[in-house]
Amino acid sequence: MTKGVDTKLNILEIGLDVASRLGLEAMTIGDLAKAAKMSKSGLFAHFQSKENLQIELLKYAGEMFSRIVVLPALNTEAGIPRIKAVLDNWIRFSGALTGGCIFVTASSDFKDRPGKVRDFLLKQQGGWIESLRRIAQSAVKEGDFRSDTDCDQFAFEFYSLLLGFHLYSTLLDNADTQLRQRAAFESLINTYRQESGTQS
Amino acid sequence: MTKGVDTKLNILEIGLDVASRLGLEAMTIGDLAKAAKMSKSGLFAHFQSKENLQIELLKYAGEMFSRIVVLPALNTEAGIPRIKAVLDNWIRFSGALTGGCIFVTASSDFKDRPGKVRDFLLKQQGGWIESLRRIAQSAVKEGDFRSDTDCDQFAFEFYSLLLGFHLYSTLLDNADTQLRQRAAFESLINTYRQESGTQS
Repeated sequence: MTKGVDTKLNILEIGLDVASRLGLEAMTIGDLAKAAKMSKSGLFAHFQSKENLQIELLKYAGEMFSRIVVLPALNTEAGIPRIKAVLDNWIRFSGALTGGCIFVTASSDFKDRPGKVRDFLLKQQGGWIESLRRIAQSAVKEGDFRSDTDCDQFAFEFYSLLLGFHLYSTLLDNADTQLRQRAAFESLINTYRQESGTQS
Repeated sequence: MTKGVDTKLNILEIGLDVASRLGLEAMTIGDLAKAAKMSKSGLFAHFQSKENLQIELLKYAGEMFSRIVVLPALNTEAGIPRIKAVLDNWIRFSGALTGGCIFVTASSDFKDRPGKVRDFLLKQQGGWIESLRRIAQSAVKEGDFRSDTDCDQFAFEFYSLLLGFHLYSTLLDNADTQLRQRAAFESLINTYRQESGTQS
């Protein structure tokens, strides 16, 4: 690995953490330069524009998300066990960054900022929601979920609970948020569970 | 009403809409001055600091929230009808601003920015979650919800669904989000519904 690549990866790692706290848009090049102990111009040389930096950060976060959330879940038994793995892995991903899940923060930052960053983020969010739909489909196939399950509806409700968890744990710092999340998740699973199917 | 008060209210109204789009933190004094067709210094004279402006915007939004969401719901029959009114009113409030609910955006912006703005927002969010707990309690009292209902748990799940609705409708611009929200809400209500109680 050349020194340039090394430095860039180091900036992305630090930048992701800063962006998770301050916001992908509100974070300035100055904030990042300070955190990375670099000059603004030195940092700028690696990315050319703030927009490029933001996209590179989202890409880097996407790779981390695959590695921590999606791939390990695909190695778990299909059905409810896989859904539980996605939940646990998502909480781990969100907890790995100081400010929580970068995609939740970025979704708020870019909802009304048309452009390349928003387009990129939309593709990532679309992929994530599609993954949730698929794990629900595989739960139907396994007989864990009822055959009439609306898998898009499941994806909406599951993602909503993650957003609630994110707000409670990052802003409200509520001690029993993990327990609330577990209870809400169990209740959600039960509304879709096939009574005669495999229990987990 | 003096001209000064009038101008200030006008700035707050425009500012709330701009902040709902760009973020309460990422919005610059320049963004707001442009939208309000004022000079930066003229605008600054009304608020002295960005922090004061942010708090005034949250206060103004809080009054609007009481007027649109909370007070009309309190004039609705207690129990499930009141919970439905809160849902409808919240969607109306969120839709009244171009960028959706300012409290959702501000929660993301200020989760890791300690200071007066965050403290003020936390008080508002605490009050809102307390309101949700109370409408669940009144549903228990009316016999609409089971007597063993965990009202804090209901508040968490209800708020999570609003956050899901907010992300889907502001970022993903999904045509069937309203239908998803309705179905999720019906399902949530059913998990708490007292079978022999008043049906609505």
